[in-house]
Amino acid sequence: MSRFLSKRLSSLKEYVPGEQPKDKSYVKLNTNESPFPPAKGVIDCISSGVLSDLKLYCDPVCSKLTEAVCGIYGVGPENVIFGNGSDEILSFAFTAFCDKQTPAIFPDITYGFYKVFADLNCIDCKEVPLCDDFTVRTEDYMRAGGTIFIANPNAPTGIMLAVSDIEKILDANKDTVVVIDEAYVDFGGESCIGLTEKYDNLIVVRTFSKSRSLAGARLGYAFGSPELIRDLQTVRNSNNPYNVNTLTQLMGAASVTDTEYFRKCTEAIMENREYLTKKLTKRNFDVLPSKANFIFARSASISGAKLYEELKSRGVLVRHFSKDRIKDYVRITIGSREELDKLVMAIDDII
Amino acid sequence: MSRFLSKRLSSLKEYVPGEQPKDKSYVKLNTNESPFPPAKGVIDCISSGVLSDLKLYCDPVCSKLTEAVCGIYGVGPENVIFGNGSDEILSFAFTAFCDKQTPAIFPDITYGFYKVFADLNCIDCKEVPLCDDFTVRTEDYMRAGGTIFIANPNAPTGIMLAVSDIEKILDANKDTVVVIDEAYVDFGGESCIGLTEKYDNLIVVRTFSKSRSLAGARLGYAFGSPELIRDLQTVRNSNNPYNVNTLTQLMGAASVTDTEYFRKCTEAIMENREYLTKKLTKRNFDVLPSKANFIFARSASISGAKLYEELKSRGVLVRHFSKDRIKDYVRITIGSREELDKLVMAIDDII
Repeated sequence: MSRFLSKRLSSLKEYVPGEQPKDKSYVKLNTNESPFPPAKGVIDCISSGVLSDLKLYCDPVCSKLTEAVCGIYGVGPENVIFGNGSDEILSFAFTAFCDKQTPAIFPDITYGFYKVFADLNCIDCKEVPLCDDFTVRTEDYMRAGGTIFIANPNAPTGIMLAVSDIEKILDANKDTVVVIDEAYVDFGGESCIGLTEKYDNLIVVRTFSKSRSLAGARLGYAFGSPELIRDLQTVRNSNNPYNVNTLTQLMGAASVTDTEYFRKCTEAIMENREYLTKKLTKRNFDVLPSKANFIFARSASISGAKLYEELKSRGVLVRHFSKDRIKDYVRITIGSREELDKLVMAIDDII
Repeated sequence: MSRFLSKRLSSLKEYVPGEQPKDKSYVKLNTNESPFPPAKGVIDCISSGVLSDLKLYCDPVCSKLTEAVCGIYGVGPENVIFGNGSDEILSFAFTAFCDKQTPAIFPDITYGFYKVFADLNCIDCKEVPLCDDFTVRTEDYMRAGGTIFIANPNAPTGIMLAVSDIEKILDANKDTVVVIDEAYVDFGGESCIGLTEKYDNLIVVRTFSKSRSLAGARLGYAFGSPELIRDLQTVRNSNNPYNVNTLTQLMGAASVTDTEYFRKCTEAIMENREYLTKKLTKRNFDVLPSKANFIFARSASISGAKLYEELKSRGVLVRHFSKDRIKDYVRITIGSREELDKLVMAIDDII
């Protein structure tokens, strides 16, 4: 920290992404990436002509991408916004809809970035404990008095909250915003997009990083009422109106229109999730019921930290969180069948 | 604006980028883009293998890009940070180094985004009037009592402040940060990068959008002391640690290493700038002395607004600002020789 950093940020603890060690080649099951490449149209849409045109600024209103996404999800251009990853849109939401009077409210076990966004914006947060089985107790969010952030499915648990429960939360918080972070919804989860027409206090945030195999291209999006989206656009335009670069806009449009490839990839992940869950359950693991492209599991015979370490030494990366309530668990990305078999072999070797 | 937007942002006026009309094809001299495509290596580095790997997150520490930039500019990795365009880095600097006690200080005529960043961060700003000839009076910045932002060359004037004058400002403000925005420095300007070793209060911000022909790829960077860069990294990691996508990292590294193409492009722009300046001076324009890839000029016979309109109706886009002190001027990007000839023909037709 320099002597110039604003005092309000002096205790800010930055978000730490999953490790990316370069000492050797790993089976990488630690950052919830897809094992499949992006759709063929994504590869094909990048020509030397497109690359030459990078001399020009990207389209600040993302016209073609907007058109493609609106076509697939049945919403209007006034209902959608794009970001440099969904993290950026979440950051906009913290800036737009939280302040000294309006704290951020989210579960104690959830995406770790929410706390960081709150701290960066110098706003209070209320971390609501999940139940013992890591489910959300909707009663805890009635007239919550702040902006609610719920990852659904939740991370790192993978557990889904029913849309009917989200509707209860929306009904009970009509004067504050509810942000549903659907980064992982495409793997068998139920989306809230349909509710954005009915509730003017709902924002649904999504990403191309997981189910669309475009983590490295950085593309997030969000749906909501025209007024809420307009607010997010104001923050975006006051921050970085050219936030989504030309190539990512093109690739996003190509990706979203290939519904068949999308279906195949997400179904394969769901099948692999069942496959791995069975393998681990048989090996005395407790696996939380996941609707995401990862599972959260603990072994009866080895601690989470130890399992993480032993797997890493055998060339398999998973993610471990030291937070007390979840320190017995590891989060395992659903990779390809081959990668999962390597993981299971390594586990058999360890236990 | 929705009823949910934080009251502190209720009067926020977003930045308005240069227009991108799609009704017809224009000679586009309004957003300071390069008329030349990116370096050949930029086109060649994007393969289908690279595109397939977009399923993985980008490198959050931008290793290869850092190595390439450090090699060219002779600094260490601890002295540099990358952003999704230089706007993002500027935004980080406003967040990190300004607050209620530390206002932002910048000229009254400069890059319009500074005011927006200040408003978004809810910090005061002190807009210091430029002299009548649009130069910076260094005496106005002695013990200024805030974080100073100076675009050098300045936009939209193109006028350069001497590095020796910047050193005076740095010397007189040792307890606050001075940000020199060198977006346009590569067209014959003198850079302050060399001063970052001597002054721990200096940040030099740069972009690949102008001299590197990569506006659509979004890549900015900044140099400074390890402590200042560390602060900017903290804000970045608390906001969006994967802010520079995989392709942009690759293309940036390829671009920066082609020093010969860079030299050729920037020299051509400087020649064209002289060419246009002569043409306009001959036509009774007052052209400010520019070291940027644009000129700021006013005609003795037609108002800035009118000239802008007449040019647009003839298929030539330039930029006009309605701000009182500069409303007589238009800002004209230095395009290709052919584009400039079309502009001059249109002007001859108008006047």
